[in-house]
Amino acid sequence: MSNDLFLRACRREEIERTPVWMMRQAGRYLPEYRAVRAQTDFLTLCKTPELAAEVSIQPVDILGVDACIIFSDILVIPEAMGMELIVEEGAGGPQFPSPIRSRAEIDRLTVPDPTRELWFVMDALRLVRQRLQGRVPLIGFSGSPWTLATYMVEGKGSKTFRYIKELLYVHPKDAHALLDKLARAVAAYLTAQIEAGAQAVQIFDTWGGILPPDEFKEFSLRYIEQVLKLLRRNGAPVIVFCKDCGHSLEAIADAGPDVVGLDWTVDIGKARMMIGSQVALQGNLDPTLLYAPPERIREGVKKILEKYGKGTGHIFNLGHGILPDVPVEHARAFIQAVKEESPKYHR
Amino acid sequence: MSNDLFLRACRREEIERTPVWMMRQAGRYLPEYRAVRAQTDFLTLCKTPELAAEVSIQPVDILGVDACIIFSDILVIPEAMGMELIVEEGAGGPQFPSPIRSRAEIDRLTVPDPTRELWFVMDALRLVRQRLQGRVPLIGFSGSPWTLATYMVEGKGSKTFRYIKELLYVHPKDAHALLDKLARAVAAYLTAQIEAGAQAVQIFDTWGGILPPDEFKEFSLRYIEQVLKLLRRNGAPVIVFCKDCGHSLEAIADAGPDVVGLDWTVDIGKARMMIGSQVALQGNLDPTLLYAPPERIREGVKKILEKYGKGTGHIFNLGHGILPDVPVEHARAFIQAVKEESPKYHR
Repeated sequence: MSNDLFLRACRREEIERTPVWMMRQAGRYLPEYRAVRAQTDFLTLCKTPELAAEVSIQPVDILGVDACIIFSDILVIPEAMGMELIVEEGAGGPQFPSPIRSRAEIDRLTVPDPTRELWFVMDALRLVRQRLQGRVPLIGFSGSPWTLATYMVEGKGSKTFRYIKELLYVHPKDAHALLDKLARAVAAYLTAQIEAGAQAVQIFDTWGGILPPDEFKEFSLRYIEQVLKLLRRNGAPVIVFCKDCGHSLEAIADAGPDVVGLDWTVDIGKARMMIGSQVALQGNLDPTLLYAPPERIREGVKKILEKYGKGTGHIFNLGHGILPDVPVEHARAFIQAVKEESPKYHR
Repeated sequence: MSNDLFLRACRREEIERTPVWMMRQAGRYLPEYRAVRAQTDFLTLCKTPELAAEVSIQPVDILGVDACIIFSDILVIPEAMGMELIVEEGAGGPQFPSPIRSRAEIDRLTVPDPTRELWFVMDALRLVRQRLQGRVPLIGFSGSPWTLATYMVEGKGSKTFRYIKELLYVHPKDAHALLDKLARAVAAYLTAQIEAGAQAVQIFDTWGGILPPDEFKEFSLRYIEQVLKLLRRNGAPVIVFCKDCGHSLEAIADAGPDVVGLDWTVDIGKARMMIGSQVALQGNLDPTLLYAPPERIREGVKKILEKYGKGTGHIFNLGHGILPDVPVEHARAFIQAVKEESPKYHR
């Protein structure tokens, strides 16, 4: 592999400079992505390996990021488990028209065979690996059991998360039944991704932060840990990113990932002091800083590099996905700034 | 005063049981509130002291809370500073049709004389004090400078907070000019509330949590501190509630409040260990737990009482405002549970 900085940083091996990629880097801010989307709807894009591979590789070609993440959506798992998924253009994100609201519905969900029911993701991974020809490593991903459960029970976006909270507080046994099933599905899915060519995988826990710390550990982190135990890593590093969970960094590190992803509300210097001898850290520029001009973006990059300090174990990233209305030149300036400013931390 | 538990807990004096009230306790979940609102729109309710007083006292009569908070809206300050405020029924909250987007607009804002331009809040406070006849203490409140600035610059609800973040990252001097003006307005407003009869005041920093920790300190906490310095407390305790800012509890306590409010993502036992010798703590039941049946609510109450432990310095509250679709019996069960379960922590 010509550029394995990302994988070496995940393993906390010595590197020449800090690697950088962006969550949601294959996305709407890129005109080349929008050109593909103009021809096809979102779910068809996810399910057409040729197209998914094309948009996955775009940010490698256009921005020079140090890792490629497969283009997909976390909700293809619930769909493969038997739920109807609808993504209407401009209608505020994906929806499950028949959300999970009873134990009977939980029991009807199946644990899919990912190589058969999610074949399109595996085919896309194989295609991307072929086409990358070792330029940069390929990352697979999944939502965490808790985050998938939140979407499946709410059915659509929510401000209060009433239904998933009711399930948790009023019917905790049913919540555990759902989460256990999801943990098995996610572990099988990520194992299949690694077998299909993913060289690292990331678990996104977008909604762990809506829980009090004890409930986060009981209903989210516990099932991430279960995924990590069931998963056949085959040497692939695992990144766990729990948004808004700065209160539980030590517990997350103890769950067994190789890398802990940080959102922008965590001080990466403090995080390194707490868990940096145990895991690598990924993050964590405020994604809205990419609205600012390149000089200001560079300042933000320098500050985070300085906070992390010298030595390996840092993968630069945003603290959440890149926003769809960020100018491409700003994204490029971000990547460049990391490449130019980071070598002095690795001498 | 017949029940001054709340004030004594704010001052960390010995008490017989833990006092309890709820943020947004004068609100939609109460049929009696909805009956008043059926006759009048939201802003008229805010600006009619007779009606504002009526709904402020409702939760004292109906639920037996240990403190009364004046019914109002944090956005009456920006309106008094010269911005047009619109609250359309069912249109997703209040809006500023002409949000602040330039230095010239910041410079045009005036620091209002609260006794003249926000007379209706002062009149409502005087009315409530009269009618309470010392049954429970009366709390005044304001948004924090940062939170008010966020609404004024965004104009309406936002997922990404693009405009306020651009102001902060690209034009920090203009942001400081706006925040400085707001700090002076908030200090004058809270001073006037105390003079009109508020026996404690709370500063709500709803949006401090969208910032990285350093920026939270520079753009939000610094101006809360300025408010606390300018404010003439006259013995009234000040509560500072910064939502999603568990990363900066020590800094918040150092800013000089009497009480730090905690949202439900903070472990109140850990918070007490960190700052409990410096300030009282208010909080922090997950507001969605009030969807659960009374037995489950009681369990949640017991857990938080146990985490805080023995002794004074705890004001029980939700970790955020009560949700509009919570059954009244559940709110009552919450208040009752605190009253019944807490005495043993004060012997």
